[in-house]
Amino acid sequence: MKMNTFPLIGIGVSKLNSSGVKLDVRYHLILSQNEEFLNTLGLEHPGYEVIDGFINQSHDSKDFEKSMEQKLCIKENHQLIIHKIEEDGPISDICDAYLKLYLLSLTVSQPNTLNLDGIFGALPNIAWTNHGPVDPTEIDLVRKEVGDLVVRSLDKFPCMTDYIIPDGVRIADASRVRLGAHLSEGTTVMHEGFVNFNAGTLGAAMIEGRISAGVVIGKNSDLGGGCSTMGTLSGGNEVKISVGEDCLLGANSGLGIPLGNRCIVEAGLYITGGAKVEVIDASGETKDTVKASSLSNEDDLMFIRNSLTGAIQCKPNYKSVILNESLHKND
Amino acid sequence: MKMNTFPLIGIGVSKLNSSGVKLDVRYHLILSQNEEFLNTLGLEHPGYEVIDGFINQSHDSKDFEKSMEQKLCIKENHQLIIHKIEEDGPISDICDAYLKLYLLSLTVSQPNTLNLDGIFGALPNIAWTNHGPVDPTEIDLVRKEVGDLVVRSLDKFPCMTDYIIPDGVRIADASRVRLGAHLSEGTTVMHEGFVNFNAGTLGAAMIEGRISAGVVIGKNSDLGGGCSTMGTLSGGNEVKISVGEDCLLGANSGLGIPLGNRCIVEAGLYITGGAKVEVIDASGETKDTVKASSLSNEDDLMFIRNSLTGAIQCKPNYKSVILNESLHKND
Amino acid sequence: MKMNTFPLIGIGVSKLNSSGVKLDVRYHLILSQNEEFLNTLGLEHPGYEVIDGFINQSHDSKDFEKSMEQKLCIKENHQLIIHKIEEDGPISDICDAYLKLYLLSLTVSQPNTLNLDGIFGALPNIAWTNHGPVDPTEIDLVRKEVGDLVVRSLDKFPCMTDYIIPDGVRIADASRVRLGAHLSEGTTVMHEGFVNFNAGTLGAAMIEGRISAGVVIGKNSDLGGGCSTMGTLSGGNEVKISVGEDCLLGANSGLGIPLGNRCIVEAGLYITGGAKVEVIDASGETKDTVKASSLSNEDDLMFIRNSLTGAIQCKPNYKSVILNESLHKND
Repeated sequence: MKMNTFPLIGIGVSKLNSSGVKLDVRYHLILSQNEEFLNTLGLEHPGYEVIDGFINQSHDSKDFEKSMEQKLCIKENHQLIIHKIEEDGPISDICDAYLKLYLLSLTVSQPNTLNLDGIFGALPNIAWTNHGPVDPTEIDLVRKEVGDLVVRSLDKFPCMTDYIIPDGVRIADASRVRLGAHLSEGTTVMHEGFVNFNAGTLGAAMIEGRISAGVVIGKNSDLGGGCSTMGTLSGGNEVKISVGEDCLLGANSGLGIPLGNRCIVEAGLYITGGAKVEVIDASGETKDTVKASSLSNEDDLMFIRNSLTGAIQCKPNYKSVILNESLHKND
Repeated sequence: MKMNTFPLIGIGVSKLNSSGVKLDVRYHLILSQNEEFLNTLGLEHPGYEVIDGFINQSHDSKDFEKSMEQKLCIKENHQLIIHKIEEDGPISDICDAYLKLYLLSLTVSQPNTLNLDGIFGALPNIAWTNHGPVDPTEIDLVRKEVGDLVVRSLDKFPCMTDYIIPDGVRIADASRVRLGAHLSEGTTVMHEGFVNFNAGTLGAAMIEGRISAGVVIGKNSDLGGGCSTMGTLSGGNEVKISVGEDCLLGANSGLGIPLGNRCIVEAGLYITGGAKVEVIDASGETKDTVKASSLSNEDDLMFIRNSLTGAIQCKPNYKSVILNESLHKND
Repeated sequence: MKMNTFPLIGIGVSKLNSSGVKLDVRYHLILSQNEEFLNTLGLEHPGYEVIDGFINQSHDSKDFEKSMEQKLCIKENHQLIIHKIEEDGPISDICDAYLKLYLLSLTVSQPNTLNLDGIFGALPNIAWTNHGPVDPTEIDLVRKEVGDLVVRSLDKFPCMTDYIIPDGVRIADASRVRLGAHLSEGTTVMHEGFVNFNAGTLGAAMIEGRISAGVVIGKNSDLGGGCSTMGTLSGGNEVKISVGEDCLLGANSGLGIPLGNRCIVEAGLYITGGAKVEVIDASGETKDTVKASSLSNEDDLMFIRNSLTGAIQCKPNYKSVILNESLHKND
């Protein structure tokens, strides 16, 4: 059973810029009243009594803080964070934001189950470097101090693998998976794959295409190289896209409707919700012409573009997708 | 008012290989007679008298060099660079090349306004590592010295963010923006975005597709995930592509003609210049069939592929593109 | 003359996790009886007598090991590797795997000529960091030791350029070329390019698209931005794809059949093997309608989608592809 109930407390460390502004939060322990503790790193579980005390705000936090500071060896320009989220409201600061992104990437919370309103405003834009997060306006100062400084990303979100490495997952190019991605065991994200925050896989899957924010992919599905799932953050689409189980999106294809189970979209074909589609029955006859959006969430469909007439067609799908096991035994 | 007038002087530091060959140039100060100084880093403005002296070649440079060497703390295997470009001729060496790439990325000069002839020949191929630029033939020697050496790129151009971090810009995967990219404030380049040198945005824009060399994107436009703008460096295209303001290129689409303002290219559709296009009027009637290239630079067009007939069609566009503000407040 | 004959001996160093499990192998010398030694780094050739001794298993290896250990300065958590492959059987361990991946990336062996069965099982999943390979389960321990730790990839295969930098090759984003890629001199892999292991180019080529495992590209060919070559590891395709010489795959196109020489696939068009294609003769008449797979390996073809009828068509190709020389002089 996975935990998704607040209140929660996260204990960790934040790196600060030269003015004391928080650049990130690395949580080492996430605690809740009714569940086991998560993500321990060099931190003993402080005991349920202490946790209960915190949750109920009856605990003297000074001693606990002192002991945590010692255990975490807080360095210069860093700060101990003990952050509590009472209930799942909008995000009010960077500590909130990171705690919820952790819950997603620890696969404790599923995409689209947390309130992430305000996350862009709460997260500062950061230069992510080989010397950790740096305030972009201080990059030249830091370069003077440390010497060779390589900027990997200039973004509000860090790469997930710099904070959390899930079990049984491969991510060939770690730059392409943001903290807040939800990757289930057995998932392989190839070089052309991409997973935004609040998005991901619900079981073992092969991801060589792009999973936009809010999009979830069912187990045993295969997103071909360069395929697109339409997002809702930019570009005007308002329908949340998803992919069921045992589906295949072909290479360079695209998806603008939620897909059921055992569906295939042909390589190179982009299905937008408004596209008119010829529905072909088992005997090969055209039964009807409908908007693609009306086929949302239906199972056992195959979408192709007829290579002689140019029409987008939807047929019954009899093929099944079989993942190559050796690509998903990620130990 | 932006400066684009020569002569210019750049002051900086070059890293050398073991034979004294320049690997890069990091400029700390760029000076012109009639404009303010740019991109200062730990360098005081030397005074207009000194600059005038340099520009007019009447200045005794020895003292100035000495003082610059001190201020810049030139390390071993590095060399002070004081480089002047008299007028905008072809590129003759690495110092020329970097100075012009800086002008572009500092958004002082717009793409396609500088003479960049000879830039490929002037730039050596470099292994860009976590220990700075390395001569590829010396990589094993350097690894012996420094220990863990990670090669991020083997290319003539560096990543822009290792030299310049523009204000109000996000670049999710910094590997994908070359020095010489021109990114205006409010631009967000997502993981699948790419910006070549001598290319970029003229205002706030969402870039999830590829901006080829020579291509410029107008303000408030949105390049969807994986979309392509046809370049002129390779592949045989000779027409310089551009995108106007308030345009949307759908995910996985492609553009082989210059686009006017308020235009949309449907997700998954590639418009090449030679493609024949049905022109549809406001009443839905086909008015004409024309080559796509004849629609170059026209405003308010929507390009789609009819999903039943397979024909590429061009209709009047009444939708307007609205960028999601929270994605472009990049502070 | 290139070597592809076993037995071979590789001498190098393996990094170990805290339990002594091998994380990688960096070979410094690869030796065979009948060929010159390869890839020397600070290692003298030990003399053919010694090599013969090893190959024939008549040599006392203790002295040799000792001298190699001294020369390679084996550090803590590292181990000397002297590994022999008698004949080209399935891969049984990580030393086998790396030795064969080296042969491919050194362009000693061509793709599809080595037995790579079992390679996924033989390679552990590794966190590739700015401090070298790390066991993913030990990442937090290592971060405690070294401080700033950036994870670049979580994968069984390393990036090629961290082990081998071929002559005359550019790779704009090194994350996208796995060890085991075979890149011939004059090849440029742009940011959107990708090359899997056991795949690559047989001559100078421009790669802005994806070369899947097992796929080879002939000399002077151009893979446009974001184009796809269908692989056989996942997604259900069983035919090994290849591209001949002087071919152009347009941007965002895709290829599901082996292509002959001097062929063009239009930008945005995905050719799957099962697609029906109208074959057009020199006079513009439709001669026939065939499956695309029946055109496999034929020369001088141009594939387009008719932009008015939506039909995929195959015409005689009279255009020739000319690579831009300045992009391939990679010194």
